[in-house]
Amino acid sequence: MKQIEGGVTAAKGFEAASTAAGLHYEGREDMALIVSDKPCEIAGTFTTNVVQAAPVKWDRQLVENGTEVRAVVINSGIANACTGQEGIDICRATAKAAAKTLGLADERQVAVGSTGVIGIQLPLEKLTNGVRKMAGQLAATREAGTAAAKAIMTTDTKPKEAAVTFDVDGVTVTIGGMAKGSGMIHPNMCTMLSFVTTDAVIAHETLQTALGADILDTYNMVSVDGDTSTNDTVLLMANGLAGNPEILPDTAAFAEFKQALHTVNESLARQMAADGEGSTALFTVEVAGADSKDTAKTIARSVVSSSLVKTAVAGHDANWGRILCAMGYSGAEFDPEKVDLYLESDAGKIQILQDGLDTGYSEDAATEILSEPAITAVIDLNMGEGNATAWGCDLTHGYIDINAGYRS
Amino acid sequence: MKQIEGGVTAAKGFEAASTAAGLHYEGREDMALIVSDKPCEIAGTFTTNVVQAAPVKWDRQLVENGTEVRAVVINSGIANACTGQEGIDICRATAKAAAKTLGLADERQVAVGSTGVIGIQLPLEKLTNGVRKMAGQLAATREAGTAAAKAIMTTDTKPKEAAVTFDVDGVTVTIGGMAKGSGMIHPNMCTMLSFVTTDAVIAHETLQTALGADILDTYNMVSVDGDTSTNDTVLLMANGLAGNPEILPDTAAFAEFKQALHTVNESLARQMAADGEGSTALFTVEVAGADSKDTAKTIARSVVSSSLVKTAVAGHDANWGRILCAMGYSGAEFDPEKVDLYLESDAGKIQILQDGLDTGYSEDAATEILSEPAITAVIDLNMGEGNATAWGCDLTHGYIDINAGYRS
Repeated sequence: MKQIEGGVTAAKGFEAASTAAGLHYEGREDMALIVSDKPCEIAGTFTTNVVQAAPVKWDRQLVENGTEVRAVVINSGIANACTGQEGIDICRATAKAAAKTLGLADERQVAVGSTGVIGIQLPLEKLTNGVRKMAGQLAATREAGTAAAKAIMTTDTKPKEAAVTFDVDGVTVTIGGMAKGSGMIHPNMCTMLSFVTTDAVIAHETLQTALGADILDTYNMVSVDGDTSTNDTVLLMANGLAGNPEILPDTAAFAEFKQALHTVNESLARQMAADGEGSTALFTVEVAGADSKDTAKTIARSVVSSSLVKTAVAGHDANWGRILCAMGYSGAEFDPEKVDLYLESDAGKIQILQDGLDTGYSEDAATEILSEPAITAVIDLNMGEGNATAWGCDLTHGYIDINAGYRS
Repeated sequence: MKQIEGGVTAAKGFEAASTAAGLHYEGREDMALIVSDKPCEIAGTFTTNVVQAAPVKWDRQLVENGTEVRAVVINSGIANACTGQEGIDICRATAKAAAKTLGLADERQVAVGSTGVIGIQLPLEKLTNGVRKMAGQLAATREAGTAAAKAIMTTDTKPKEAAVTFDVDGVTVTIGGMAKGSGMIHPNMCTMLSFVTTDAVIAHETLQTALGADILDTYNMVSVDGDTSTNDTVLLMANGLAGNPEILPDTAAFAEFKQALHTVNESLARQMAADGEGSTALFTVEVAGADSKDTAKTIARSVVSSSLVKTAVAGHDANWGRILCAMGYSGAEFDPEKVDLYLESDAGKIQILQDGLDTGYSEDAATEILSEPAITAVIDLNMGEGNATAWGCDLTHGYIDINAGYRS
């Protein structure tokens, strides 16, 4: 497997375009379109929020029915959440307009995605104009992919892309994706959207199996502020244009595919965490030695989500008491007196706790380590073989600035 | 029942004192002592954190053994958490010194409480000197109670006290308490400590039943930043000096006692929420019409704890999408299309949502309501009879300032 440059247009037969449809108040690009030359098997995972946005409902139906999809229309600026039947109608009308423009037989060949302010209806005419404009500009270039990744941003400060290639029986297969992280211009919620494309030959169920398992270790291990959006969506599309022998479950090729997918998803997840609202540092928590993987995950998520730990990271303070405290209220069982804790970054690695007690580490050395833009807390529970990693960011004045402002 | 002025010295036979023992770097008062003229039945509830501070372990044993307690020694500045066997030994030595000074037969007649930085050992000599000094200054006055409430503060900006009286068969019974909320001078965690005294005649088990039930609706419904401390403690002491006929379970007197205790606890809980670190507003969430009380509680806690809702309150922004979103990811079941939402404060009350949809309310009116120092979100799920209230505060730059600083 090899990491390469690129995003949604990296795999064969995928084109992208983007445009300024007039949804964003600054007039920047706010719509993206992904089109595959051939129908795609599609897998998807969605928010567990009881309140689900209209595009989530639309896409879930496509995924559950195993519909073969040709295109995805995405907009930023308005989330199309809490919009009732009218919101669903707008999804359908958008998909219909895209299908017509692209010469597809059925609107169910078009998935949709939205992120932005909730409780507001999307202006359908702007959307359909945007779709028509984008349909005339589709390109398979890296630039077109990056432009699409930029168009779906809200308060993200940079586009998020990742791609890899790997071999299946001598045939090169590519997986590439783009994502957006947390934040809204009219701040409302952090919405996570991720669109991953591949030219692999792989059946719908196999694709869904791979995606369903992998999100548990990637996107689901990211926390910016603990608020689970109404719009979270990951879509994975496979158009088969690589021409590889079909990737079947329980084969070496499937293991390779899962590893490649994981690399793309993990990269996008890390990029989202690092670019969390107001963040100045990517904060990674690695838990090892747990009695189970679930325990490791529970503890890693609890530490990475703690407001007090996150503010300590912002302050470059090796405040291990807050880390141990967040582990303790996670709900997971462990022995505080067996915990080893290390802090690590490009500036070095230092042991903070041994068997739950302060090692007498140098606060200056710890502060130097914590002053880097990517910091890792390594926790060893010394109880078993379970391990997990979670990604988050520090909590700063920037988060308050972004989210405490008026919506208008 | 009547609310009165006062705190831990309001009930008959309770004295308090406080002193500057040299634990706090500013040299302010940092120790408090509560002493009862007669042995007290004691009830207690403690943090559920796996990591438990030494004083929590000490007090839990007293409560579980039904030990009759005469005094409580409390310090701020150092939490005595993550301090191993030495920490426990210091609890015992402190209790022993207090017992000797007060002429008590056994150190197990003395409860202890600590709040402050974790991972540091308490200086025993300073503690025992403090205890001796306080023993000579005990007073049953209101001023002594308030001074004690001040001495246990960390980043609290004001002392927290509450007291009520009620009648049992014509005999006046008093319940009074003091508490400290969230924040540390050397910020480490938010520790909630509450000490409630009463002169009621009531047995240990009855007292524990009343307390155990009431914390679920009071202290446990407060959230400042979602971090559950290693030191959280509520102690309730009853010395029987009111001379009322014993309050027995399942009687009208017990119902009256529980109501009085609830009034004190709720007042202390509200005061803690209002004085959360960096807060400029008390934020109350009332949920009604849930299918069960548990559902109502889950939703109320989720909304009051959401970083995005809390920053919206800080920004005086009626950002109902965030409220609906936090309800949706709470894990509770409800129908988003049945939700009515109101915002209320001294400036008025306004309906924001009807059946899950925007009422077309005035943003100006909403902003005016949200600019008050005490704001309530009233949520009606229109599904059943379950209701609950949770208390929190807004999330501001002040929280970051307090918690992102260096410890030293």
